[in-house]
Amino acid sequence: MSAVPLILWGETMRALVFDQKLSLEDAYPEPVAGPGEALVRVLKAGICNTDLEIVQGYMNFKGILGHEFVGVVQGGEWDGKRVSGEINLACGTCETCLRGMPTHCPNRKVLGIAGHNGAFADYLTLPIANLRALPDEISDEQAIFIEPLAAAFQILHATHISPHHRVIVLGAGKLGLLAAQVIALNGCHLTVSTHHPHRRELLSGWGIHAATVDELEPNSADVVVDCTGAEKGFADALTLVKPRGVIHLKSTYHGPASANLTRVAVDEISVVGSRCGPFDAAIRLLQRYMIEVNALVDARYSLDDGLDAMAKAGQKGVLKVIIEVD
Amino acid sequence: MSAVPLILWGETMRALVFDQKLSLEDAYPEPVAGPGEALVRVLKAGICNTDLEIVQGYMNFKGILGHEFVGVVQGGEWDGKRVSGEINLACGTCETCLRGMPTHCPNRKVLGIAGHNGAFADYLTLPIANLRALPDEISDEQAIFIEPLAAAFQILHATHISPHHRVIVLGAGKLGLLAAQVIALNGCHLTVSTHHPHRRELLSGWGIHAATVDELEPNSADVVVDCTGAEKGFADALTLVKPRGVIHLKSTYHGPASANLTRVAVDEISVVGSRCGPFDAAIRLLQRYMIEVNALVDARYSLDDGLDAMAKAGQKGVLKVIIEVD
Repeated sequence: MSAVPLILWGETMRALVFDQKLSLEDAYPEPVAGPGEALVRVLKAGICNTDLEIVQGYMNFKGILGHEFVGVVQGGEWDGKRVSGEINLACGTCETCLRGMPTHCPNRKVLGIAGHNGAFADYLTLPIANLRALPDEISDEQAIFIEPLAAAFQILHATHISPHHRVIVLGAGKLGLLAAQVIALNGCHLTVSTHHPHRRELLSGWGIHAATVDELEPNSADVVVDCTGAEKGFADALTLVKPRGVIHLKSTYHGPASANLTRVAVDEISVVGSRCGPFDAAIRLLQRYMIEVNALVDARYSLDDGLDAMAKAGQKGVLKVIIEVD
Repeated sequence: MSAVPLILWGETMRALVFDQKLSLEDAYPEPVAGPGEALVRVLKAGICNTDLEIVQGYMNFKGILGHEFVGVVQGGEWDGKRVSGEINLACGTCETCLRGMPTHCPNRKVLGIAGHNGAFADYLTLPIANLRALPDEISDEQAIFIEPLAAAFQILHATHISPHHRVIVLGAGKLGLLAAQVIALNGCHLTVSTHHPHRRELLSGWGIHAATVDELEPNSADVVVDCTGAEKGFADALTLVKPRGVIHLKSTYHGPASANLTRVAVDEISVVGSRCGPFDAAIRLLQRYMIEVNALVDARYSLDDGLDAMAKAGQKGVLKVIIEVD
């Protein structure tokens, strides 16, 4: 039985739902746009590591998964517009919102992650303020990368990376490959750590140097960005960063991480984190073909095969898996 | 009579020399590389506004002008390498150098600007440490832009521009057009002020918004970068910047500038300057075809027509003038 009461007079839709376990439902209630909201017909959605973590219990989320999407607005002022959308639904009235940090609103809901149904379904709703109309230069599949690319750009907001800097990105997964491209844009000396020969080739094709962690010199980087999603990432970052350098954390994982924090004190290291970022910046650079995302797509599944899509995305070494909804 | 004693047993060369007045000399003494230095045969050089200002008396410089160049090393370990070169010759031993700021060394000489002959000649010398070998992807003409492009990248070193920021570049001259391209790389909301229809077209072709100063909203920019080279630039910047925003000065000009500094105090504005920047960053992005410089070339002259080249470069609305030496 579904956790959501079935409203018999409403429309229903397909949805990939997590409630203790993952299931594909055929007759999930279609959402209804509230005041200031838009109903969006989903075209395609992307599977993020966060989706995989939710299935492992992260965030205690119950409902429709998915927060990377492209869709078409149904009705209202934005009717027919092709859109992507910011995933944080902020209250707009608390102190944090008024300080200009809506993505940190303590009352926020998050699309497909906290308190608001997500994009692995025929329809979703979002506040109109969250929507971004998409220029024609950005394809549906590229548009799915706007959300994670914005998260990569947030690195440049939270940490001042100078063109003079030596920078290491640890991990060349979905986020690491976007972070590397974004960081390389200012011409700094960048190395990305990865064992995967295919990803080294990808990076090399973009003019970005790749190496294994063992090949990197200790205490050599002004900034280390951890995109490994693993506890070892922080330990490696502590080894690689220069005195007075910065470790930027993009990894999230379950449970406490053990780390040599004494080095942070003794070598006067700064540790900074970042999460969601500027959609506008991501859209501008995708529109100008400055970021390559097509090469990151590893597989495509219809929503009807959503369970297979999630299984595929969970396999080691798989990059982006796309769910084709329409 | 030349200010440099004519050494009768030495080789001579052509040189565009400033000593009270500008003159093209046919038999200027060829420089000799000292210890740690390289002799460079100049292929091409670019005329910068600084060269025009020196002719107006800036820096009290006497000698061969020119600091934007591409050349080929003659002899020694670097023999035959095609190079560009950093223009500051620092002592390497003073406190400023030891603090990692060689471009601010109080004992420095500067190629074609202070105490060291420049690039508008058949040959120049530079410390080998200043040289940068050029990858094949960068043409001779593009290589001339490495020095001013590095100066544009220094904006990103001295001022943290976030992808969330609204940024205005004032002026779309030689430096403004490079600064605009560099700043646009992080996806921030960028507008460049210019009246020139041709430059608006250029910018628009790069996906960068252009407007006249009058079209810009007061108090609207997180960062304003003044590349006008005129006193009015700072006044405009003060009008356009938001409270707590940053004004970044790339303009240099003769004499004191009068400005409403009260607004700096009352609106808590930061004013920052920058000059020379990272050659490596400039080379990496030119190599990756991320910066367009070919469109900035307005005219080409042989060194024999160097006086005409300088006259052309001084005309209103002219962008880069190239001196072809070889």
